[in-house]
Amino acid sequence: MSKLRNISGFPEWLPEQRLAELEVAEAVKRVYELHGFTPIETPAVELVSTLTAKGVVDKEIYGLVRLREEASGTPELGLHFDLTVPFARYVAQHFNDLDFPFRRYQMQKVWRGERPQKGRFREFYQIDADIVARDELPLACDAEVLTVLERAFAAVGLVRYELRLNNRRLLRGLYASLGIPEEKRAQAIAIVDKLDKIGADGVRSELLGELGLAETVVSDLIKSTEISFPASDFPAGLPESAKQDPLFAEGAEELKSILDLVPEQSQAAMVIDLSLARGLDYYTGVVVEVHLPDYPEFGSAGSGGRYDDLASQFTSQKLPGVGVSFGLSRFMELAFSEGLIEGGPKTPSRVLVAVYSEDQRTRCQEVAEVLRSSGVPTEVFARSPKLGKQIDFAAKKGIPYVAFVDPDNNTVEVKDIGSGTQEPIADLGAWGRKLKDLA
Amino acid sequence: MSKLRNISGFPEWLPEQRLAELEVAEAVKRVYELHGFTPIETPAVELVSTLTAKGVVDKEIYGLVRLREEASGTPELGLHFDLTVPFARYVAQHFNDLDFPFRRYQMQKVWRGERPQKGRFREFYQIDADIVARDELPLACDAEVLTVLERAFAAVGLVRYELRLNNRRLLRGLYASLGIPEEKRAQAIAIVDKLDKIGADGVRSELLGELGLAETVVSDLIKSTEISFPASDFPAGLPESAKQDPLFAEGAEELKSILDLVPEQSQAAMVIDLSLARGLDYYTGVVVEVHLPDYPEFGSAGSGGRYDDLASQFTSQKLPGVGVSFGLSRFMELAFSEGLIEGGPKTPSRVLVAVYSEDQRTRCQEVAEVLRSSGVPTEVFARSPKLGKQIDFAAKKGIPYVAFVDPDNNTVEVKDIGSGTQEPIADLGAWGRKLKDLA
Repeated sequence: MSKLRNISGFPEWLPEQRLAELEVAEAVKRVYELHGFTPIETPAVELVSTLTAKGVVDKEIYGLVRLREEASGTPELGLHFDLTVPFARYVAQHFNDLDFPFRRYQMQKVWRGERPQKGRFREFYQIDADIVARDELPLACDAEVLTVLERAFAAVGLVRYELRLNNRRLLRGLYASLGIPEEKRAQAIAIVDKLDKIGADGVRSELLGELGLAETVVSDLIKSTEISFPASDFPAGLPESAKQDPLFAEGAEELKSILDLVPEQSQAAMVIDLSLARGLDYYTGVVVEVHLPDYPEFGSAGSGGRYDDLASQFTSQKLPGVGVSFGLSRFMELAFSEGLIEGGPKTPSRVLVAVYSEDQRTRCQEVAEVLRSSGVPTEVFARSPKLGKQIDFAAKKGIPYVAFVDPDNNTVEVKDIGSGTQEPIADLGAWGRKLKDLA
Repeated sequence: MSKLRNISGFPEWLPEQRLAELEVAEAVKRVYELHGFTPIETPAVELVSTLTAKGVVDKEIYGLVRLREEASGTPELGLHFDLTVPFARYVAQHFNDLDFPFRRYQMQKVWRGERPQKGRFREFYQIDADIVARDELPLACDAEVLTVLERAFAAVGLVRYELRLNNRRLLRGLYASLGIPEEKRAQAIAIVDKLDKIGADGVRSELLGELGLAETVVSDLIKSTEISFPASDFPAGLPESAKQDPLFAEGAEELKSILDLVPEQSQAAMVIDLSLARGLDYYTGVVVEVHLPDYPEFGSAGSGGRYDDLASQFTSQKLPGVGVSFGLSRFMELAFSEGLIEGGPKTPSRVLVAVYSEDQRTRCQEVAEVLRSSGVPTEVFARSPKLGKQIDFAAKKGIPYVAFVDPDNNTVEVKDIGSGTQEPIADLGAWGRKLKDLA
């Protein structure tokens, strides 16, 4: 008998957890669909040459080998490590069958071939939403994906959240205004981006040592990373000293155009954060990262930004885009481990039909069928033990109602497990429809 | 620029196809949930030792290797090739957290590491539903999963279908009654099972040659494979000659108990087929295979059966079960290639809000928001070109309505793309709710 163990990094939920995860996923997907994003799906498997087409990949890739075949050389096929590369390949490959601007969402697992490590997932769900256009993409699209990301977290409703925003031009302009020479800006940004990992002292010493910046410049730079203010204070909250820089002014203008198109309610959750550098080698405009103030250690719960060209490695078409990603599996892990979700039902069933005796089973099935026709998930107890045992089963699984069919006449009584009350139901179909509407 | 090509065996759908697939999947899942099956999910990845725990696996397995690591020996991890092995491992592993009988469904992709071959998928969706119990599983559960499978195909509503049923004892009893000695029955069943592949002549010659059965026995046996009759004729349609055999009688009794608990409407789609041998080494009671009479070449669109012990390789608990599987990806491939589904919408959006000019965008967004609050997926055109262009975009994507916001007052008019009519809408929220209810 093989021994069972969890494989580290491959999360697996119990039924009640999976139901909770589906509820969260549905809420996010609902927001995306209400904004007209269409669900697409790509295979889990891509050519390794596709996965590595953009050059160096810092994510670890799982290659596939057929167990019955002698392994030889680099595998041809691998599992996707994100949803952006497959989406880029999809858009390039089906270019003539798609209508642009093309807005899609994609909820799929991604795989990272990392060594097992505590807290790191090697298989996890992301829910990405992107809009890509041909040649040019209006800033209204940036505003929309930011809105959609905010609404996704609002719809989930489990945590306080903040969308921290920055803009590449704003950041580069800021660095220029601080007197950092152009050729050192990218590197300086990369160093500051390590703030969370190596701390202010670490950043300071790298800026001084490796980059050879002056003491006062480094001081100002580190101070600038603390600039953070509500989006409603934009652009007033920007540092006066930087506003003269043309690149900075351009970035501010761009961000303003975006924020002007974000509804107030969504804007209320947004914060400008000039320290945010998030992959600015990849993103070319706005960037966003979702923080959970109550869980500062958690890192980002969602992220995204604008990119100039989605699929340059696959097509000569210029396809600018803007997209966001909701980290579903990591979010659920947090929700479970912090007790944000617990004790939910273990089944979709809302009613258990109890069975007095086997000769009543067909009648019980008919009663269940009336409820199902009203849209109420219903199960019939598989055996006919004492009724108390059947009621216990419902209670344990979180089924809120137990129906009893009187063997002598056509009446059905329903017990509410929560309140303990029991009453006859004259019109079961109507009762079921009411129950369904409440759900 | 890397060249793009489809990887053979890894289906990928266009947006309109994916929306159709989701609709089919939703219909199937809805049926499963109405019967109280709870959705679970297991990682795509299992230990190879888990995947091969039951001994010889006739399915080809994809093993995983980290691209950055020198390959050495058999990979530790692999992709699951079906949903039964992971389910068995799940039940054994989480035994103490589950309530039995445990009814679950699972819609996930599975992978087969086969050589590329026309018409063979290497990555595809299955939707499985199973009920497992401890120690003993009532026949009511067999009846229920058969009912659920029938209802799944009814809910999809695209094809004529037939659930062909057999029973292991019935089959063995039949072979006994034909005078085939016990030690040759399993092999005879295996040969007859190849009927579809090698034809009646092939079967005949193997039964005569390899198995050394007498000419008359073989003749009777081949004739028996033609026995097939509607479930409503059960047990009358069974061959008289076999009814004396005790094993046959036992099987008939069992199948009768099951059919008695299948609602008439579902039974109407069921056919008894004494030639059906479908993996009888694995299944121990009823077996089912879904055939599509209009597409005889298609093979089985769904299948399942009763097994004595789900997880004997993982636990000493005895866990009998019964389950069925809906072959989603293969079904969709058929539906697309036969034109059963075509020309559906390419987006969830039901309304496109046209934008006269950029200074109207915020107002257009507000209008979209009213519709979204009513539950209607709505998108705002990303630019503001001529209205004709915006209407064309809606028509091309299958968005049925275009809303126009009058820049001079608060009125909104809606154009029905299908009929071409356009009318002012006084209460947009109410209009949206009506539209939603129609969907």
